[in-house]
Amino acid sequence: MQKGLLVVISGASGTGKGTVCKKLLAESEKIFYSISATTRQPRAGETDGVEYFFVTVEEFKNWIAEDKFLEYAEVYGNFYGTPIHKIEERLNRGEDVLLEIDIQGALNVMKKRPDGVYIFLLPPSLEELKNRIKGRGSESPETFERRFQSATNEIATGKKYQYVVVNDTVDAAVEKIKSILAAERCKVNRNENLFEKLLGDVI
Amino acid sequence: MQKGLLVVISGASGTGKGTVCKKLLAESEKIFYSISATTRQPRAGETDGVEYFFVTVEEFKNWIAEDKFLEYAEVYGNFYGTPIHKIEERLNRGEDVLLEIDIQGALNVMKKRPDGVYIFLLPPSLEELKNRIKGRGSESPETFERRFQSATNEIATGKKYQYVVVNDTVDAAVEKIKSILAAERCKVNRNENLFEKLLGDVI
Repeated sequence: MQKGLLVVISGASGTGKGTVCKKLLAESEKIFYSISATTRQPRAGETDGVEYFFVTVEEFKNWIAEDKFLEYAEVYGNFYGTPIHKIEERLNRGEDVLLEIDIQGALNVMKKRPDGVYIFLLPPSLEELKNRIKGRGSESPETFERRFQSATNEIATGKKYQYVVVNDTVDAAVEKIKSILAAERCKVNRNENLFEKLLGDVI
Repeated sequence: MQKGLLVVISGASGTGKGTVCKKLLAESEKIFYSISATTRQPRAGETDGVEYFFVTVEEFKNWIAEDKFLEYAEVYGNFYGTPIHKIEERLNRGEDVLLEIDIQGALNVMKKRPDGVYIFLLPPSLEELKNRIKGRGSESPETFERRFQSATNEIATGKKYQYVVVNDTVDAAVEKIKSILAAERCKVNRNENLFEKLLGDVI
């Protein structure tokens, strides 16, 4: 049986990454969202094991010591990490796992898992990116400038990914991602067993 | 504008390569079949410029001397070659070009054009391959054995391609190939201009 795909999707802020991932998960039967662990407090409506695994700083540090994270980072005093155990379980069952993580995390995962599928979402245009950042309530021109500069820096990092998908419409972006996953399943190096099955009796 | 894809499809004899390519061409608007040149005589019903460009041995050798072939080979005393001129024209217009060529030819093209998309078709099973070879009228057990051995040798070469597609049904195989082409268009190295467009004014 073919192993599942480790799918990493990132994008600059304001590219609509969350919406695209939600639709992809809703429309695909064998792809599952990797739930991150965090030490930050749950917000209203968040449930342990759904949005995040909420753990104490001590637990998190134990997991780090036990090498239980594919990647982790500290952001504004809180830890966030991708537990590896459940991911391997699913991949070995032939299920795909979706990691919706930030660029720094993705670059770290790339080093550890060159067999992953790395997809970067782009906004359709700079104008659209500006509008989306404005829509997120960047009140002062300074805040806007800072966020916009940060987003364009992030976009430049996208060149380190394998695939780039323009999020002009959510539907089109999700279709493209589905094509990428279908194509990756056809990669020769993911189909060693197919050749063995066909040639095993012969060569 | 993005350049078109150079798509190379090969497969062992008896994998239904011709049928798959025909359906792909019929269903896709911007992919075109690269017409080979040959020195063999046209068969009944074949038209110059449709199935092949029929040329004299002298013309063919001139084209070789002028480096006008992406690849060429001599098979049973006849020359077959892939003229490069029309291919480049189409690729530069953003159109995809399909090369349905044999494995040796494909391996030669790979060296020259690492930016191509190399797809290898596999039969669904050894049983099915045997049936298809029998169906082609391999009368004697010796002929069958020879063809079958040759087909399995060809299949082993498939590992040198990028993608492998099992031709269990023609429809499913064509869908997979379409996904591969869509995914290839999302490859970061085919989208330099996208980053330039987004970042050109900024960085």
